[in-house]
Amino acid sequence: METSAFILKLACPDRPGIVAAVSHFLLHAGCTIVEAQQFEDPTEKRFFMRVVFAGAGGEVEPARLRAAFEPVAAQFAMQWSLTRQGEHKKVLILVSKFDHCLVDLIYRARIGELPIDITAVVSNHGAENYRHIDFGGLPFHHLPVTKETKPAQERRILELVEETGADLVVLARYMQVLSAELSAGLARRCINIHHSFLPGFKGAKPYHQAHERGVKLIGATAHYVTDDLDEGPIIEQDVERISHYDSPENLVRKGRDIERRVLARAVRYHVTDRVLLNGHRTVVFPD
Amino acid sequence: METSAFILKLACPDRPGIVAAVSHFLLHAGCTIVEAQQFEDPTEKRFFMRVVFAGAGGEVEPARLRAAFEPVAAQFAMQWSLTRQGEHKKVLILVSKFDHCLVDLIYRARIGELPIDITAVVSNHGAENYRHIDFGGLPFHHLPVTKETKPAQERRILELVEETGADLVVLARYMQVLSAELSAGLARRCINIHHSFLPGFKGAKPYHQAHERGVKLIGATAHYVTDDLDEGPIIEQDVERISHYDSPENLVRKGRDIERRVLARAVRYHVTDRVLLNGHRTVVFPD
Amino acid sequence: METSAFILKLACPDRPGIVAAVSHFLLHAGCTIVEAQQFEDPTEKRFFMRVVFAGAGGEVEPARLRAAFEPVAAQFAMQWSLTRQGEHKKVLILVSKFDHCLVDLIYRARIGELPIDITAVVSNHGAENYRHIDFGGLPFHHLPVTKETKPAQERRILELVEETGADLVVLARYMQVLSAELSAGLARRCINIHHSFLPGFKGAKPYHQAHERGVKLIGATAHYVTDDLDEGPIIEQDVERISHYDSPENLVRKGRDIERRVLARAVRYHVTDRVLLNGHRTVVFPD
Amino acid sequence: METSAFILKLACPDRPGIVAAVSHFLLHAGCTIVEAQQFEDPTEKRFFMRVVFAGAGGEVEPARLRAAFEPVAAQFAMQWSLTRQGEHKKVLILVSKFDHCLVDLIYRARIGELPIDITAVVSNHGAENYRHIDFGGLPFHHLPVTKETKPAQERRILELVEETGADLVVLARYMQVLSAELSAGLARRCINIHHSFLPGFKGAKPYHQAHERGVKLIGATAHYVTDDLDEGPIIEQDVERISHYDSPENLVRKGRDIERRVLARAVRYHVTDRVLLNGHRTVVFPD
Repeated sequence: METSAFILKLACPDRPGIVAAVSHFLLHAGCTIVEAQQFEDPTEKRFFMRVVFAGAGGEVEPARLRAAFEPVAAQFAMQWSLTRQGEHKKVLILVSKFDHCLVDLIYRARIGELPIDITAVVSNHGAENYRHIDFGGLPFHHLPVTKETKPAQERRILELVEETGADLVVLARYMQVLSAELSAGLARRCINIHHSFLPGFKGAKPYHQAHERGVKLIGATAHYVTDDLDEGPIIEQDVERISHYDSPENLVRKGRDIERRVLARAVRYHVTDRVLLNGHRTVVFPD
Repeated sequence: METSAFILKLACPDRPGIVAAVSHFLLHAGCTIVEAQQFEDPTEKRFFMRVVFAGAGGEVEPARLRAAFEPVAAQFAMQWSLTRQGEHKKVLILVSKFDHCLVDLIYRARIGELPIDITAVVSNHGAENYRHIDFGGLPFHHLPVTKETKPAQERRILELVEETGADLVVLARYMQVLSAELSAGLARRCINIHHSFLPGFKGAKPYHQAHERGVKLIGATAHYVTDDLDEGPIIEQDVERISHYDSPENLVRKGRDIERRVLARAVRYHVTDRVLLNGHRTVVFPD
Repeated sequence: METSAFILKLACPDRPGIVAAVSHFLLHAGCTIVEAQQFEDPTEKRFFMRVVFAGAGGEVEPARLRAAFEPVAAQFAMQWSLTRQGEHKKVLILVSKFDHCLVDLIYRARIGELPIDITAVVSNHGAENYRHIDFGGLPFHHLPVTKETKPAQERRILELVEETGADLVVLARYMQVLSAELSAGLARRCINIHHSFLPGFKGAKPYHQAHERGVKLIGATAHYVTDDLDEGPIIEQDVERISHYDSPENLVRKGRDIERRVLARAVRYHVTDRVLLNGHRTVVFPD
Repeated sequence: METSAFILKLACPDRPGIVAAVSHFLLHAGCTIVEAQQFEDPTEKRFFMRVVFAGAGGEVEPARLRAAFEPVAAQFAMQWSLTRQGEHKKVLILVSKFDHCLVDLIYRARIGELPIDITAVVSNHGAENYRHIDFGGLPFHHLPVTKETKPAQERRILELVEETGADLVVLARYMQVLSAELSAGLARRCINIHHSFLPGFKGAKPYHQAHERGVKLIGATAHYVTDDLDEGPIIEQDVERISHYDSPENLVRKGRDIERRVLARAVRYHVTDRVLLNGHRTVVFPD
């Protein structure tokens, strides 16, 4: 029975005995390991693990299991979480004018590919911008933003996160820069997508800059939001080959495809508990 | 000290307690896990694991460790090996006229990228075909082959494998079909490289066939040799994009690049104990 | 002014003077070449060309231009077409249960990325299967098919193609095999998408077969439909890397992403007059 | 007869009649177009063309052809060159400690894949560093460099370029920064290879920086050398996927593979007259 599987995710200082302790705990709790991945960072001396397990004899009681695991976690100073596999995470999506990532995430949620419940869509543009999207009952919030209203608008976003119980906030081509306060308030639970090039470019109209520079590859990066703009821990990246034939408009078009698939992968990794923070880097256990 | 690290590689029927048993064994043997990867195949109900570990307090004695591990292995019906990390594997290379893979493997061995000692090079062509390669003392064996001499030639190959103590035989664009006997004699320790296309082609001049068919991608596959020609367990594959501009000669040229990097990766995975057989498939733990 | 640009697409036996004749024709017609690509197939001795041009002095009258070009075309035995750049092509989409390609094409059409007008959607499944898609007024036709009704259903499809004036039929994961008659009736104007692997697999549940075989790459191919099932001229292909971690379900999921982007590219190439047939191959001029 | 084919490469301000003029010139000179590619840059209003042609009736006399083409070139203010197809270009290679690109270029030249004659190898390290390379008679020059000797060393490099008649200088992982004078002296005929990341990094130990930043892709860029360090016109780029498993040493290893194939492609494009400069960008006509 798939619903009785659980995901234990943990990170702690690396020292002998962690795997032994975790595996014995699970064995004695009557649980079978279904899938496990681990990583020992030799530089940072940190240990990372993701274990999927199921009750060998029947249904597992997560609250009891959490309580029983507490001493093990304490012994090794673990940061950890225990979630039910397949359980949908609640996701709030922020979007601006371009809706390709939004449409893509809604579709993937709808067909059950992404285990998420979208709790609300927030945009600084009005609902008329999205009239061809079948929101299917998703609450839509128009929160326009000016220099003056920005603090109030960001407070409203945080309220919505709390009201809807969102586990994750996705900036699906949301073109407003978050304040340091909002970034901090959403630390470790907010994913952004942005274009990436070799070499990189700062400032406006990046695809036009890339065209001007004559790069032969364009790409996108999904990362956790920190107060260091576009520089948070990277979750996923991808690129496509381009040529001198590609106008800036072509680059924007090809960029859309890369952006939506990179963002969808990053969201998937996050909501299936495959991403662990390692300082300002990530450990991503593939699927 | 890098030389005191070991690799434990194992496969067995999946059942509760394997990780607990292995990790406890290592803990009690005074060893620390440096790196570990595992995979539970839900279809075949088999478990696969690769653990790199080091003696926490000092040098480990592999013979004693192997003896101590025997009961654990027996309890779970494991197929297993324990090797010293970084220890060079002995490799015999078979080659025909085209030497791009041979030259590449020699170079990677020479700069220490591949932990291998090439024990001999065998070709059905004469040494004059390779006069620009600095063999640097590598024994070269010219073993020409005709229909009549094939059984004798293959026996000589097997003898060379034994005489040189080769752990692995690499068919680096060796254009002779191995007999079922030789394939069986080299089971699980012989890697071949061949071109791959979507869709696939049988028969001679495959790049010309691919050109004729108008494919937009060409690729290569490295696999273990079995008596089912070009159909053994796949270790690694890669592709490159092509277009109508590409003549058959261009495809052959681009194919060379794909072949040598795919073969080098497959050899690397094998000699660093990253490949485990799972029926006629492989489990490859990435690096 | 973008609307005054035209695309001349032509193929003919290769012989001296073609480029000179075409470029002089355009020069004397008062037109400027904006973009041109050509290909001389040395094997087939055929010449292929795509020229985008604009009236240097003002609006071009396509009918007059076509008439004036006739003698040039006749002289070199050209197959040719002259279309207005940016003009939308009419597209009929056939779909079965899985709608990821359908949803993707509708979205790309809606935001103006693909210059197509979808004239109708035909499915062998009922409208209730697609209730979350905002068809926005697109006619939907439920044409169920059984062995007995297949000839009638296919006649109805051909009627719809004619009634709606469709330039192109897209099989967007349409899981019915077209009869030889329908394939012939849609020759050169029907694109299909299907999965592709190295090596290839025939028969049902291909992603499960690929998993069983242990391939390390999966892909998709978009091709023109001929009566040789899944073997028509290839327009576009792409792949993604997979591993032993990927269950058959994962392969299906990753396959969806490849399928929709390969199909969208192929449709784009076709409707922007970038694909020319070269026997059972294609010449695709990139953008 | 392949040796009688020629490559005409040209760039000029875009205006009507260029293709007509070039194609008529060739037709009246008794030449047949074998292959042609052109590009009109709508932003810069420049026209780029590469034409491969052969004498229809027999051998072509290049000097006479060049003289005859002069008026056409003058009329359109063309920058142009006319070279014999397949003619080997003379290449001087500069290298430092790491020789993977050097070895690769020598191999590709030897098997006839790259139409180049390597006229000399220059290194700031001694010959003993390369004792496993079969130079096969290639002149090797040890030109050590210190702050004081740098001007003299660079003068010697320029002398070697002149003495050997080198058409192209390749910095095959040459770790010395060229002075502005040498860069200027080698303008448009000197190709460098360097690592590339998303985002980019400046300074020493770039692969270690990339590891520290946690990027998921690493790449390499081949570009023409200008006095703006690592910022000249890009000819070719490529990337590979990495993960948290990759140590900085792994990145260096994977980087070697990317570097050598990107550099080899760039050299190939250059010596087959496929690269045209477009301001600080390139137009690369693919093969």
